[in-house]
Amino acid sequence: MPRPRPAELLDAARAGDRAALARLLSMVERGGEDARAVGRAGHGLGRDAYTVGITGAPGAGKSTLTSALVGVVRRRGDRVAVLAIDPSSPFSGGAILGDRVRMGEHALDEGVFIRSMATRGHLGGLAVSAPEAVRVLTVAGFPWVLLETVGVGQVEVEVAGHADTTMVVVNPGWGDAVQANKAGLMEVADVFVVNKADRPGADETARDLRRMLAMAQPRSGWQPPVLCATATTGEGVEEVWQAVLDHRAHLEATSELVERRRRRAAEEVTRLVTARMLERARAVSAGARAAELVAAVAEGDLDPWTAADELLAEDRRP
Amino acid sequence: MPRPRPAELLDAARAGDRAALARLLSMVERGGEDARAVGRAGHGLGRDAYTVGITGAPGAGKSTLTSALVGVVRRRGDRVAVLAIDPSSPFSGGAILGDRVRMGEHALDEGVFIRSMATRGHLGGLAVSAPEAVRVLTVAGFPWVLLETVGVGQVEVEVAGHADTTMVVVNPGWGDAVQANKAGLMEVADVFVVNKADRPGADETARDLRRMLAMAQPRSGWQPPVLCATATTGEGVEEVWQAVLDHRAHLEATSELVERRRRRAAEEVTRLVTARMLERARAVSAGARAAELVAAVAEGDLDPWTAADELLAEDRRP
Repeated sequence: MPRPRPAELLDAARAGDRAALARLLSMVERGGEDARAVGRAGHGLGRDAYTVGITGAPGAGKSTLTSALVGVVRRRGDRVAVLAIDPSSPFSGGAILGDRVRMGEHALDEGVFIRSMATRGHLGGLAVSAPEAVRVLTVAGFPWVLLETVGVGQVEVEVAGHADTTMVVVNPGWGDAVQANKAGLMEVADVFVVNKADRPGADETARDLRRMLAMAQPRSGWQPPVLCATATTGEGVEEVWQAVLDHRAHLEATSELVERRRRRAAEEVTRLVTARMLERARAVSAGARAAELVAAVAEGDLDPWTAADELLAEDRRP
Repeated sequence: MPRPRPAELLDAARAGDRAALARLLSMVERGGEDARAVGRAGHGLGRDAYTVGITGAPGAGKSTLTSALVGVVRRRGDRVAVLAIDPSSPFSGGAILGDRVRMGEHALDEGVFIRSMATRGHLGGLAVSAPEAVRVLTVAGFPWVLLETVGVGQVEVEVAGHADTTMVVVNPGWGDAVQANKAGLMEVADVFVVNKADRPGADETARDLRRMLAMAQPRSGWQPPVLCATATTGEGVEEVWQAVLDHRAHLEATSELVERRRRRAAEEVTRLVTARMLERARAVSAGARAAELVAAVAEGDLDPWTAADELLAEDRRP
C-alpha cells in the first residue's frame, strides 16, 4: 500500500469521504511523522471547530448524554463529531464497532462522525493528538466536536479542560460533587450537569454544587450553571445544550474565546517542544558516550553533573 | 553571610562538624548550582555508603523500626545516618526538632545523624537529591544510610527502591500485603518485615507474603525473606538487621551490587540530562520568539509542529 498523502486525504475528507477521514485520524493518533504531515497539511484550512469537553466519573452517563446532545445538535441542523478519549485503552480507531453500538442511533447519520482515540505513549500523547484531530474534523466539515472522556485521569481532565466549553457530568449524591472537587474538575467546569436526575437527591446535589461554585471566584465573568438532566429519556438535554450555546456566546462577546485559543496554542507548542527535548534526552542518554560516562560515575571517578554536562554538550554538536 | 564553599564544608564535615554537614545537605536539597557545587566537590572522596531503603504504608511503624535498627547498628559499633524522605512536605532540614523527638533516644549520640529531606520541585527533585545526600553523608563518615520514606508515593518508592537493600514494612492483616503488591513494592523489596507482630494475624500475613513472593521470579538468585518484628519492644529487630547483612553479602558475592550501582548511576545521569532539557524547553517556550509563533498558531497561520521546530532550532543556536 503506498504511503497515504495527507493533502489528498484531506481533500477527500472535505468532499465527504469518511474512509479518508478515518485514515487521517489514524495518522494523527499514531503520532510522529504521520501526525506531523497531517498537521502541516491541515493548517490554515480554516478556524477550528467549536469543542465541548464532556468529563466526569466513570458510570456518570457521559456516553449517553453525549449521544443525546448529538441528537440535539442534529435537530438544529448542524454536523457534529464525537472524539471519545481513552488514554488507558490499547484500542482506538479500530473500535468502530464498539462506537457504533455505543451510539447506535446515529450510526447511519452522515452528519455524525464518532471515533475513539487512545494513545500509545508517543510524542506528546493525547494532549497533542486531540487538538490535531479536532483540526482534521474541522477540515472535514464538522463545526462541532464533542470530546468525551472515559475516565477522570489527569490526561482526560487536561484534554476536556482545554475544550472551548467544558462540561462536567455528575450523578445525584454528595459523593460525586466531592469527587469532582477533588479531581480538579471545579476549576475547569463551564457547565455542570447532574445526570440521572430522575434518581433521588438530584436537587440536593445541584444545590451543593452551586454552593461550592459560589465559594469559588467566577472566571472572567462566567458563573457555571448547574443543570439537571436525564440523558436516557432526553429530559433536560435541550437545556444542557442551550447552556453550551450561552457559554459560547459569552466567550465570543468577551475576548475570552480568543484568549483561550491562544493559551491552548501556547500549550500545544510547549508540549511539542518538551516532547522533542525529552526524545533528545533519551537519545543522548542511550548513546555509547553515555555508557562510558555512566561507568565513570558508577566507579566514583566522575560526578553525575559533569557527565550530564558532557552529554548535553554532545547533543548541541551539529 | 559569605557563600559557603563546599570543599571547606566537606573538610569540616569529615572532621565531625555536624553544622557543616547540615549545611551541605541543605545545599543538596536546594538543588541548582549549590547542589552541583557540592556534588562536584564531594565526588571521588570514596565509595558511597551502603544504603537501606525502608518503605511501606503510613502507620506501618517505619519510623519506630528505623530507630530500632539504628540502635542495632550502633551496638555493632558502626556510625549510621537516617534520611527521612518526604516529597510532600514543605518542611525539610528545618524540622530538626521533629526529628529529635521522633528518634529521641539517639539525639545525643554523635554516631547518629538524622535528617528530613523534602523537595521543592527543583531540578531532578528528590530522586537526584537523595543520592547526592548519601554521597555527602559518606564523606562525613557514615558507612550506613537508612532512607526512610514517609509514604508510598511514586517518588518514595523510587527513592527507596534504588537503595542497595530495600526493606518493605507491612502490618498484620491481608490488606497490607495486597496494598504492597498494588503499590509495586513486591518488585522492589529485598527484605519484608511484618511489623507490630504482637498483634493477631502476623504469621498469616507473613505466610501470605511468602506465597506471593513464591509466585514471583526471584531476582538474581535472592529470595526476599519475610521477618516478623515488633519495633516498639525490639523483638525481632536484630534478625531484621541480619537479613540486611545477608542481602548485602549476597550482593557482594554476586556482581549484583556493582550492577545496581551502575544502573543507579545511569538513572541519575539520565535524570539530570532530562531535567536540563526540560529547563531548556521551558526557556525557549517562554521567550519573545515563542510569543510570536504562538500567536501565529492561534491565528491558524502556522502549524504547531513548525512553531516547535523553530523554537528548537533557536535553542541549538549558540
